[in-house]
Amino acid sequence: MKNKNYYAILMAGGVGSRFWPVSTQNFPKQFHDMLGTGDTLIQKTFNRLAKLIPEENIFILTNERYNDLVFEQLPSVTKRQVVLEPAMRNTAPCILYAALKIQKENEDALMIVAPSDHWIEDEDAFSENVKTAFDYCESHDALMTLGITPTFPNTGYGYIEYDKEQSLGEVDVKSVNQFREKPDYDTAKSFLKQGNFLWNAGIFMWSAVSVIAAFERNQPELFRLFNNGYAVYNTEFEDDFIKENYAKAENISIDYAVMEKSNNVYVIPATFDWNDLGTWGSLYDKLDKDDSQNAIVNSKVLVDNATGNMIRSKKDKIVVIDGLKDYIIVDKDEVLLIFPKTKEQDIKKVLQNVKANFGEEYG
Amino acid sequence: MKNKNYYAILMAGGVGSRFWPVSTQNFPKQFHDMLGTGDTLIQKTFNRLAKLIPEENIFILTNERYNDLVFEQLPSVTKRQVVLEPAMRNTAPCILYAALKIQKENEDALMIVAPSDHWIEDEDAFSENVKTAFDYCESHDALMTLGITPTFPNTGYGYIEYDKEQSLGEVDVKSVNQFREKPDYDTAKSFLKQGNFLWNAGIFMWSAVSVIAAFERNQPELFRLFNNGYAVYNTEFEDDFIKENYAKAENISIDYAVMEKSNNVYVIPATFDWNDLGTWGSLYDKLDKDDSQNAIVNSKVLVDNATGNMIRSKKDKIVVIDGLKDYIIVDKDEVLLIFPKTKEQDIKKVLQNVKANFGEEYG
Repeated sequence: MKNKNYYAILMAGGVGSRFWPVSTQNFPKQFHDMLGTGDTLIQKTFNRLAKLIPEENIFILTNERYNDLVFEQLPSVTKRQVVLEPAMRNTAPCILYAALKIQKENEDALMIVAPSDHWIEDEDAFSENVKTAFDYCESHDALMTLGITPTFPNTGYGYIEYDKEQSLGEVDVKSVNQFREKPDYDTAKSFLKQGNFLWNAGIFMWSAVSVIAAFERNQPELFRLFNNGYAVYNTEFEDDFIKENYAKAENISIDYAVMEKSNNVYVIPATFDWNDLGTWGSLYDKLDKDDSQNAIVNSKVLVDNATGNMIRSKKDKIVVIDGLKDYIIVDKDEVLLIFPKTKEQDIKKVLQNVKANFGEEYG
Repeated sequence: MKNKNYYAILMAGGVGSRFWPVSTQNFPKQFHDMLGTGDTLIQKTFNRLAKLIPEENIFILTNERYNDLVFEQLPSVTKRQVVLEPAMRNTAPCILYAALKIQKENEDALMIVAPSDHWIEDEDAFSENVKTAFDYCESHDALMTLGITPTFPNTGYGYIEYDKEQSLGEVDVKSVNQFREKPDYDTAKSFLKQGNFLWNAGIFMWSAVSVIAAFERNQPELFRLFNNGYAVYNTEFEDDFIKENYAKAENISIDYAVMEKSNNVYVIPATFDWNDLGTWGSLYDKLDKDDSQNAIVNSKVLVDNATGNMIRSKKDKIVVIDGLKDYIIVDKDEVLLIFPKTKEQDIKKVLQNVKANFGEEYG
């Protein structure tokens, strides 16, 4: 039933340091059951994609140190599906590398590139949107994104500005004018007022042919570096080639390397609810609440005069709280964090302080 | 060097439920290193008494369930020194029982009865005061207490009113008029103004002969119950007798059973700093503070805008706190408590709620 030309690349190399102390360098956010549902975020993302895409065509792009976590949490995945970056080089190099491998395996491949740690409410709507994009990419040389309709002037996301006028004949497919970096508050407000701005969720769809062509046009050096290995990809000689050459790649994002420079970029306004689960506060927003608006993961709580808190501990730990409002209370075996939700962006700084004072092992 | 007639009874059967979650029914306060010094409270108390009293004459009066904890924490103590209550019957029955055992062993015995979980700053001054009391008790039929000079109108302690006029010829020994239960605030203030009121610290000294005589006078029934076993005390038949009879004893305190009814009661105003370590707040008062007036036991903390807090965790746990003032933050493996210091008296209620909601095992 599933189209064998459909492929996915799950981006699973990030650390999510604003979710410290749960998310750490050795055990990042995407490998945790952040929502307390029984599934880790990467498991949820894999299962969501597997509704549309053959499981064996879902590739996991991650860092070598997370290799074991991937196989533990996604036991059906084989070695072929795990693409390891030997060095941290941002998103462009690893996407190009994976696209070339997939292209060599199937020259008709259509690919989605998606973060492994986001929350999507309506999985059928998601599949529908991706299917629409794939249909479009099959017949056009297109670089496609899913854009999220903004609900408030968020200054923490990049925005995609699409062309109000240009009608493409196809439903829901808009031509993109430009990508806009995280705006200040007034700019974000004007984006919402203008109406043709969407949040950039980092979800991309294209044919392998189109994205490789876009790299060749816009990043010729990077293209040559990885295209030189084309003959050895998916063979026993691939590892040696990658180990020797990967670190030579420029550290550059897919947005900057390709999307912002191309004029065949399109966006579909997503018809599903989305959350990047970027901070404890955004996780709080998506969780069920108790009568006092506390979001609780794993803990057994007894609260008095405590409202709006994000509470997480190991399974079934008793947490008694009196008088806290809008706090993040996260307890791990070696670390306890009690921090105001309004200052959640400072958790990265706290983490730096903890590492400086008590050792790198706590990050 | 030490006087072989000197004996001590360490009261170690209480639970200290206001120190939950650290203090629990199975592992009460006196067996914890509450001060973070490396010694538990009972170890500190034992060592303090051992400066004046032969170690083999220090008896531990406790509940059967704490038998193992006593031998673990006081390895020099033998079975002879541990007096177990087969049932909870308040202080009078167990003190009488222990006094009879000691009297049978040494009819010249002078005894101090002392809580196992209090804090005393100047241990030499304490020894000095006890020695003065023992000297007095050796030559008089006296029931003696150490009274603490009040520093503020505390409504949480009982008070001892001594006779301003009566001169006893001996330095520092005052005749007691009456014991006063925990007063309301205005009464406590008037006590301080009058100047002849001391806090009752639950520390008693007497000869075995005098206390047994006082029981015989004031609690004839209780006296008969335990005196009936005199022949078997310190023999292999003692256990059977106690198991059969102990539960028949009235549930009554030493204050009410004997002290308040006797007219040979004397008090020595203590010349040492004392704290009953009754609550997290009183523990906080006695601990060293960091620059922000936080008292920290075991934790490695990183605080910002957090002052006056009592923080305790397992050894070397990282605790990050932002914005809390005057809180008790206590973390255990299975329980986390975040509670205002001003409401510390409510911790008993919290404990009841936790047990009712999540099970008796958490108390």
